[in-house]
Amino acid sequence: MIRSIDVIFSPDLLSSICLEGKTVVVIDILRATTTITFAIANGATYIKPVLTPERAFAIRQKQPNMLIGGERYGKLVDGFNLGNSPSEYQRSVVSGRSVVITTTNGTRTMRACMSAKQVFIGSFLNLGALIRVLDQANNHIIFVCSGREGQFCTEDALFAGSCVNALCQGQNDVCLTDAAKTSQLLFQTHHQQVFESIQNSDHGRYLTSIGLESDLEFCSRVDLVDVVPVMINGRISLCDVF
Amino acid sequence: MIRSIDVIFSPDLLSSICLEGKTVVVIDILRATTTITFAIANGATYIKPVLTPERAFAIRQKQPNMLIGGERYGKLVDGFNLGNSPSEYQRSVVSGRSVVITTTNGTRTMRACMSAKQVFIGSFLNLGALIRVLDQANNHIIFVCSGREGQFCTEDALFAGSCVNALCQGQNDVCLTDAAKTSQLLFQTHHQQVFESIQNSDHGRYLTSIGLESDLEFCSRVDLVDVVPVMINGRISLCDVF
Repeated sequence: MIRSIDVIFSPDLLSSICLEGKTVVVIDILRATTTITFAIANGATYIKPVLTPERAFAIRQKQPNMLIGGERYGKLVDGFNLGNSPSEYQRSVVSGRSVVITTTNGTRTMRACMSAKQVFIGSFLNLGALIRVLDQANNHIIFVCSGREGQFCTEDALFAGSCVNALCQGQNDVCLTDAAKTSQLLFQTHHQQVFESIQNSDHGRYLTSIGLESDLEFCSRVDLVDVVPVMINGRISLCDVF
Repeated sequence: MIRSIDVIFSPDLLSSICLEGKTVVVIDILRATTTITFAIANGATYIKPVLTPERAFAIRQKQPNMLIGGERYGKLVDGFNLGNSPSEYQRSVVSGRSVVITTTNGTRTMRACMSAKQVFIGSFLNLGALIRVLDQANNHIIFVCSGREGQFCTEDALFAGSCVNALCQGQNDVCLTDAAKTSQLLFQTHHQQVFESIQNSDHGRYLTSIGLESDLEFCSRVDLVDVVPVMINGRISLCDVF
């Protein structure tokens, strides 16, 4: 039974939050958690989020079979196998492979959430599957948005709001924080224009400006896959709870 | 002519924001900026926000005529002249006096904004006067919410949204960030229930729980006074721009 839901709008706001014993969902719709969800759905063995490109190169040096993916300020890093467009992570590329990923916002959030009891990866791609897993979760759920360079961003809050809305269906006694209520309002206002909201967001407009508009459409797809990635000891793999 | 408006939901998100050359409005509806607005309207010479009670006591030791006001976790600090209920700061108490104030959230935000070109103090009490001043401001306005212990809070975002909404009236070319748009949505949804929104907010419920419910009604009053406090060199006094 879920009793309380909080939404944290930036990893920079985590310092005063106790994650111990809590169920956390990390969100970086544009694009890390969308990419990771798609990679896991396509059979990637595991994803290891790291903070820097240097760390990613060091890991591949020891394990040459690993792929390196990610971005800095939206763009491919020299020497990486893959960028951060989810559509790059097709089955033919990632099935049976492990991937080290480093991104500007998302991987920083994942690393910052490691003290939680459970850490799930959420995106519109796996919304339904995520809700099924969260419905079985413990009393306290915290959605942690990656934001954009530390700042609030619409697409992450919108997704958090879609989860809050789904989790509250038929439950009257869920305690929502101010941030959870505001996220829910955002979703209730824009639920019929998810793609347009993402397109008009600060980050969406930036990605469009660097030629990545097609990613926005991909990242807006709801229930494209039926998996939930879970992070255990710093590795993200398929959650087999359900 | 205003060109862009941003809203920062917590002083903890300021580290990556450049305030230089910008016009900033500090918001702590419950209750520091409401209290300061009321004190300035009632003739306080100036307000000096400081970070700790120790600093406040040290200043009064040098200037025994100063009053000390503020709170920690909503409650009066031993040895202070005044708490943080705006209604305490009546003309009979503060006229012609200077006040050192330290609060859990608001004064921290004010100190963090000192690098801005201009720093105004906003509250529902002086909404109309603030908008008149901001209409003459420079191209970039940033509303900085104090939040509650670093976290997003509804009442500050709601007030930021009321300002965004007013400043956008009749202007088509104002660029709003994701946070500014979300604040505006919050206001547009709840503008007829400002008091109820504050009452139902996390901080509002906390203040009610410690017997300060009457402050919520006070802090919800729109246009009670016609002043704008401005912070210059760490001192807040009456802005005489208009």
